[in-house]
Amino acid sequence: MEKRGLASLKMLPNMNEHIKLMLNEKIVLVGSEFDGKPFIKAMLVSRRESDNIFYFDSNNGSNRVAHWRENPAACVYFYDKPAYRGVMLTGTMEIINDLETKKKHWRSSMKAIYSGGVTDPDYCILKFLATSGRHYFMFQSEDFKV
Amino acid sequence: MEKRGLASLKMLPNMNEHIKLMLNEKIVLVGSEFDGKPFIKAMLVSRRESDNIFYFDSNNGSNRVAHWRENPAACVYFYDKPAYRGVMLTGTMEIINDLETKKKHWRSSMKAIYSGGVTDPDYCILKFLATSGRHYFMFQSEDFKV
Repeated sequence: MEKRGLASLKMLPNMNEHIKLMLNEKIVLVGSEFDGKPFIKAMLVSRRESDNIFYFDSNNGSNRVAHWRENPAACVYFYDKPAYRGVMLTGTMEIINDLETKKKHWRSSMKAIYSGGVTDPDYCILKFLATSGRHYFMFQSEDFKV
Repeated sequence: MEKRGLASLKMLPNMNEHIKLMLNEKIVLVGSEFDGKPFIKAMLVSRRESDNIFYFDSNNGSNRVAHWRENPAACVYFYDKPAYRGVMLTGTMEIINDLETKKKHWRSSMKAIYSGGVTDPDYCILKFLATSGRHYFMFQSEDFKV
């Protein structure tokens, strides 16, 4: 177990195939910080642009968006329960309220959640940009490059 | 969706039966804060004392324990993926290194993880004490008393 802290001192490996597969998970756990406290919420990935850019549909009036407005630090945790394997990406969350971007992301089924449609003032898009990663498997963990 | 922020202004409900059932989950997502950033990790609940006290086996040399040594703020997220239901308890994480407590928690199968046995200097116990709760279900969320 003493090896755990040394991963950052050696050359970091790139994402391996196990990790890349896990990034396909649609429901992820998203972390925010507010007032020195950590918060977690399950969220649905609405779109994945690359291995380090993920989008979520969210609400301007929500607690979580209020957290990221104060502090954009964020993490996204991908979790394969049967395999007891986890991948945490850390980075920043950007709150997007640009109408052109919203129109690109909008799907008609979203009307059930945002009654005002694509111009609903509560509708916002969250863009997560990962800058580092950590892989957890069988009581071991290792940082990797994103 | 505008109702979301008002839950804290009215009398908080107690835990309902759905929430109590979810607290039986053995694998949970645990949140810590370090250097203004949120971190998430899946952890196995080793023992549950009540609806607001949960124990985990951990390592004195781990990143997570280093976070809680600096800042005991913690959250534990219980997640029922098929039901898209989540429960977040927020509170504090205490790091326990008292040998008597360790002996009470120790099981022989743990030797595979802590090679030095119950006196392994890397072995520690984490005690999470929840002070508040939030319940997420079908795009709605509500605080509750713990």
